[in-house]
Amino acid sequence: MHSDCIFCKILKGDIPSFVVYEDEYFKVILDRFPASRGHVLILPKAHYQDMFELPVEISARLYPLANHIAKGIKEAVQAEGINVIQNNGEAAGQSVFHFHMHLIPRFKNDQVVLNKTSNMEITLEELAKTAELIKSYL
Amino acid sequence: MHSDCIFCKILKGDIPSFVVYEDEYFKVILDRFPASRGHVLILPKAHYQDMFELPVEISARLYPLANHIAKGIKEAVQAEGINVIQNNGEAAGQSVFHFHMHLIPRFKNDQVVLNKTSNMEITLEELAKTAELIKSYL
Repeated sequence: MHSDCIFCKILKGDIPSFVVYEDEYFKVILDRFPASRGHVLILPKAHYQDMFELPVEISARLYPLANHIAKGIKEAVQAEGINVIQNNGEAAGQSVFHFHMHLIPRFKNDQVVLNKTSNMEITLEELAKTAELIKSYL
Repeated sequence: MHSDCIFCKILKGDIPSFVVYEDEYFKVILDRFPASRGHVLILPKAHYQDMFELPVEISARLYPLANHIAKGIKEAVQAEGINVIQNNGEAAGQSVFHFHMHLIPRFKNDQVVLNKTSNMEITLEELAKTAELIKSYL
C-alpha cells in the first residue's frame, strides 16, 4: 500500500471502482476511461511499480488469469478480438506506477488507438451494467 | 506444427530468424520489422492460435519469461520503458495466427505507434548484432 498510489486507494476501497473479479492476489476492475466497452485492468493487490518488480509467484498467475478474464469479456460483450497491453515506464506510456495489465475488447473497424486517452463517453450506470454482465460470464 | 504457419516454419528452422532465447517451451526471436531496436517476439514452440488456446502450463510460464527477457533487453539497448503487447484476433491487429507476445523497448519521444507496421529500416547485420547483444544480457 502506497499512500500516494491511486490503484492502492482503489484496491483498499477508498476510491470506488467496478470490480469484475477478485482473488487472493488480484483485483480486476473496469477502466474508468475505457478504450472500448469491457476494457478492464488486472491489478495485483500488492504494490509493484512495473513488470520489473513482479515476483515470480505473481507473474506466474498473471496470464492464466488474463486468459480466464479475456474469455469472459469476449462472451460478455461479443468482442471479435482482445488486445493485451502492459506498459512499463513513462516512455512506454505508463501513467499509473502500480503494475496493471489492460485487456481491451476489439471490434472490426472500431478505430481504437492503443495507448491514447480515450474519447469514449461512458456513464457510471453503463459501467455498472458492463461490470455485472462480465461477472455473469466469469 | 502447422504447415502454413510462418512462425511454425521459423520455429522448425525452415525460415531463418535471430534467436535471443530458447527453452523447452518457448523461442524468443527478434521481430524482423521492429517498432524499435530490440523488439522481440516470445513464441510458444507448440502452435496455439491465440491466448484463448493457451494451456495453463504454457501461460503460467509466459510472464516470468517475459520479465526475464524484458530485463535483458532493457539493459542491452538501455531502454527507458517496455511495452508488452499481445494481440488476439484480426480485429485486434493480430496478423500471424500463432500466439506471440511483443516486447517493445521504448525511449523518450521515440514516436513509436503501437500495432502499426514499422517504417524502421534495419539490416540483417544490425539484427544479428542486436541479437548477440541481448543474448549477452540474458
